Amino acid sequence: MDVMELAKRRGFFWPSFEIYGGAGGFYDYGPLGTLLKWNIIETWRKIFVIEEGFYEIDTPTVNPEEIFIASGHVDHFVEQMVRCKSCGEAYRVEDMLEELRMSVESLTSEETEEKLRNLKCPNCGGDFGKTEEFNTMFRTSIGPAGGKTGYLRPETAQGMFISFRRLSKIARGKLPFGIAQIGRAYRNEISPRQGVIRLREFNMAEVEIFFDPEENSTHPKFKEVENEKIRILPAENQEERKKGEEVEVTLREASERYFLNEFFSYYIWLTKRFLLEIGIPEKALRFRQQLDEERAHYSADTWDAEVKTERFGWVEVAGHAYRTDYDLKRHMEFSGEDLSVFVAFESPREVEKLKVYPRMERLRKKMKGQALGKLIEITKKENEKILRELNEKGELEFDGVRLTREDFEVKKEKERVTGKKVIPHVIEPSYGIDRPIYCILELNYLEEGERIYLRLPPKIAPIKCGVFPLVSKDGLPEVAKEVDSLLRKRGIYTYYDESGSIGRRYARMDEVGTPYCVTVDYQTLEDGTATLRYRDTKEQIRLRIEEIPSFILREMGVLC
Amino acid sequence: MDVMELAKRRGFFWPSFEIYGGAGGFYDYGPLGTLLKWNIIETWRKIFVIEEGFYEIDTPTVNPEEIFIASGHVDHFVEQMVRCKSCGEAYRVEDMLEELRMSVESLTSEETEEKLRNLKCPNCGGDFGKTEEFNTMFRTSIGPAGGKTGYLRPETAQGMFISFRRLSKIARGKLPFGIAQIGRAYRNEISPRQGVIRLREFNMAEVEIFFDPEENSTHPKFKEVENEKIRILPAENQEERKKGEEVEVTLREASERYFLNEFFSYYIWLTKRFLLEIGIPEKALRFRQQLDEERAHYSADTWDAEVKTERFGWVEVAGHAYRTDYDLKRHMEFSGEDLSVFVAFESPREVEKLKVYPRMERLRKKMKGQALGKLIEITKKENEKILRELNEKGELEFDGVRLTREDFEVKKEKERVTGKKVIPHVIEPSYGIDRPIYCILELNYLEEGERIYLRLPPKIAPIKCGVFPLVSKDGLPEVAKEVDSLLRKRGIYTYYDESGSIGRRYARMDEVGTPYCVTVDYQTLEDGTATLRYRDTKEQIRLRIEEIPSFILREMGVLC
Repeated sequence: MDVMELAKRRGFFWPSFEIYGGAGGFYDYGPLGTLLKWNIIETWRKIFVIEEGFYEIDTPTVNPEEIFIASGHVDHFVEQMVRCKSCGEAYRVEDMLEELRMSVESLTSEETEEKLRNLKCPNCGGDFGKTEEFNTMFRTSIGPAGGKTGYLRPETAQGMFISFRRLSKIARGKLPFGIAQIGRAYRNEISPRQGVIRLREFNMAEVEIFFDPEENSTHPKFKEVENEKIRILPAENQEERKKGEEVEVTLREASERYFLNEFFSYYIWLTKRFLLEIGIPEKALRFRQQLDEERAHYSADTWDAEVKTERFGWVEVAGHAYRTDYDLKRHMEFSGEDLSVFVAFESPREVEKLKVYPRMERLRKKMKGQALGKLIEITKKENEKILRELNEKGELEFDGVRLTREDFEVKKEKERVTGKKVIPHVIEPSYGIDRPIYCILELNYLEEGERIYLRLPPKIAPIKCGVFPLVSKDGLPEVAKEVDSLLRKRGIYTYYDESGSIGRRYARMDEVGTPYCVTVDYQTLEDGTATLRYRDTKEQIRLRIEEIPSFILREMGVLC
Repeated sequence: MDVMELAKRRGFFWPSFEIYGGAGGFYDYGPLGTLLKWNIIETWRKIFVIEEGFYEIDTPTVNPEEIFIASGHVDHFVEQMVRCKSCGEAYRVEDMLEELRMSVESLTSEETEEKLRNLKCPNCGGDFGKTEEFNTMFRTSIGPAGGKTGYLRPETAQGMFISFRRLSKIARGKLPFGIAQIGRAYRNEISPRQGVIRLREFNMAEVEIFFDPEENSTHPKFKEVENEKIRILPAENQEERKKGEEVEVTLREASERYFLNEFFSYYIWLTKRFLLEIGIPEKALRFRQQLDEERAHYSADTWDAEVKTERFGWVEVAGHAYRTDYDLKRHMEFSGEDLSVFVAFESPREVEKLKVYPRMERLRKKMKGQALGKLIEITKKENEKILRELNEKGELEFDGVRLTREDFEVKKEKERVTGKKVIPHVIEPSYGIDRPIYCILELNYLEEGERIYLRLPPKIAPIKCGVFPLVSKDGLPEVAKEVDSLLRKRGIYTYYDESGSIGRRYARMDEVGTPYCVTVDYQTLEDGTATLRYRDTKEQIRLRIEEIPSFILREMGVLC
């Protein structure tokens, strides 16, 4: 089987710029691929934007460099690169070491250089030079020559962090809330070799969920899903001894033993739901915890959704990173703007606090009346600061006098508090769009004898309905075209075809996953009915022409 | 009125990177703007992809430079720029001359320099230097240092031309067919000053319609629309004397007198239909022919759709360029690939052709038998070439012998031809997404006394339905939340709100164009009905809760 050949021939996707010899890491979506992509995006938006109520935004792909200095990408979004000393070809060190079954993270830089000395350039057999760091953001310049340095975003996430102030106002300052974004992101790969799996320009759908870790450790809908099962591969099972031993657990178990909390677990389940809905088979899906050395610089814990393919092995299609308050804090620091929110409690709370008071009887002996007055006043205003200083240093100086802990009394007191200032933490479920497209083609590709068909979920299939006249004469094409236009008017994407035998036309539709085909025959002219054929079962039924659009919408689950 | 203020405050759009001081020419879409944008894209796809049946594709935004060398953008996508000699600030020469009511195209370069000598830098009052050319494509580099030069695409169109071979196969070699693409495009403006109207990164929806100008001068659906009226401003009415005199004509009249042909006219009408459907008022719309000096290098004739706004005057929101066979020819030339198609005639045609034959009696005297045999053979094979050579030069050399016209006989002959090789011509309807968004906000913004509302078409409105409990107690919020979830499950975007008076909540929804609001009150608890209020009329009706989703979908025209 060759899904890639099918994808090119039928117009799902193909390498870009072919007539100019191509450029690694770029793919075009053809007509079928583009339809498929929209269907995936629509499914995603239905779950995350409409049902979960995340606010979706759309921010630029070109960003001034300040943003990526603050986000840490200018420093950390780098890869180890090595060049051949003879032909100059550049390689990812990681790709080279992979052939030795080693990862760049597990070696010191001396060991890496050592290993590379024993390898030869796959292109010309030459020796490698020293390893270099290469920042894999595409760089550009904004405005005329000598303008601002800019980068193409490596993730959509930063657009959500830097507009956080506006967004938290729109969310009326309440936590938790989620911001979603769908769009292009870029990674200037050193030498991409895995076709559609490792793209330099790709499509993502990301959510940043801002929450208060003290208050939002669970999710209101967690109870509904806690008994759902997932297959996971935690870090501890990726060590030598247990290499690759997956565990099947309920979400409740996973949240107790492996995940940050119930809040995090809920989003893992949403991902599973999304991937199943677009056609990833459950048996090909697992959630793998990234090892410490794999994680991005901003993440404290990351769990990937991985899909097992024949061609590329396990493919990461989504990640769930616990970004903590890293990004907001960095942007606060670099922009000087306050990105905290004041979270009002549902009702005011009584909080126990330590308060510090000057011991008058001792201090009267140490200082003058006026200075003492000032001390009383400042202790009221800056109570926390003074307490901290006393705790840390054991003393402080005031008006030239050295004061010690003994000069103060510390009392526990109750206080009414209406809310608190929080720099929200972030959980980020982040989805690739391109990789799942490859995966669902490969994993739904079926050969049964001569027959090839794609068992795509009807909502995801690019063409919903083939429309054929049995023969291309006797008025049948005219009627079939009417049926076609009836369907298109209801928003159903069709493919009208009158060339070749009816069997060949069915086969053409099977091959691209079209779930229904309608054929207009001589009986149609008599009684206004046509046949509808199901892709998976090849079963045929007869329906009145005018019923067909609603019938198909109901079959697809769009109408109830 | 200030639509921009509303847009920022309520989250339609705002300048990007605000916390870092911003960067001209970049805007974020907030949650409401993103919803609005999706609705416009959905409307566009319904018309162009589903109903017209154009094949939609999706190609990279980063392209290697070969593509833009071939397309002519490296040479022609330039703007005249001038810098202040004191502060170094860069300006578009066109912006500077606009203040003198002159256009850069109407002046020689000496005259331009002369005019600029009399102007001062708006920033610091300094003098301007010499004008320079600036290519307004964003430049980047693909692959590690010393890689390939690449550019961010200035239009989506090139992706469709360079994949033409694959696409014409998918269209089964038949002309005409259309390719559509929606996505980002970029223009590194020198100093963008018109906010959301002049963006450095923007969203487009383009169609390239490939046709054979000899065969496809009309459109099968032209008859249905030929009596529709449009308002146009042809080039001839833009001269001094008639400056700005618009003409109202039928499409038939326009196609006879002004447009390329009926085929072109049909797409002008589609544009009108699209713009009206997304909420551009008919009275604010005209089609203006670009003057010779305005047109892009690839276009033989361009008609823009323009919308009259209060803030920015006439704004171009779509263009219709007749790109001829310019792009395909250039890509053939630069890539060396054949991008012509063989168009089969419906039935074979008899064509009169000139054929050339050697005059044997004369030639026998001039050349040897073997050479003559070869000449006969080659004249059969390369008949057209020999005829052309004789016509152009009057003679040719063969096997060392000089042959003249008199050595050949030219006959008119009839030939059966089954088809022909064509390099298709292209009509390109090209739509901005961002500018129409601004226009529909401004042109649907209404103030009636205290009341502010956006009269957006329901299909375009970002939020479809506000959902309120009359008061936030007595179980009403619980019921209202059920209604909210009922609506969201049917894909209807809602806004649940229980804070403030009911009047204030209606006002909040009016201001962002929400066409319907549902309020749950005490009667709901008794009889299961709730009120539905219309934005435009403020009329209220009562409906059973379970009917509300279908009722709204029918009102919006989604269900029939």
